[in-house]
Amino acid sequence: MINGTLNRLTRDEQALLLEVLFSQRYALDLVSVEIADIENGSKPTDELVYKRLIALYDKLIDEI
Amino acid sequence: MINGTLNRLTRDEQALLLEVLFSQRYALDLVSVEIADIENGSKPTDELVYKRLIALYDKLIDEI
Repeated sequence: MINGTLNRLTRDEQALLLEVLFSQRYALDLVSVEIADIENGSKPTDELVYKRLIALYDKLIDEI
Repeated sequence: MINGTLNRLTRDEQALLLEVLFSQRYALDLVSVEIADIENGSKPTDELVYKRLIALYDKLIDEI
């Protein structure tokens, strides 16, 4: 699932993206959409990534 | 601009969020919205963060 563009970003740029993601309060929505895409079959993934996404969703929702 | 929730995520969870951000092709939109919020005055920031966002936007747009 690793994306080429993501790999070409510096660690500082990756950190800035994460800060903006939370500044825009979009992290939970983003993970929800990805899980929905997997569950409706429009996005292939493996069991491990799916479980990691569910765990991340649960962690983010606890933070609200 | 650092967010409490972000700090409570593990590095693996942060990496997963970034992967999903690119998987959903939403990175450029996310940075654009943040820049627009700053430019229209609805979000305060300092000059350095604004310059980093512009540089990140330029890097992301070059990747398309």
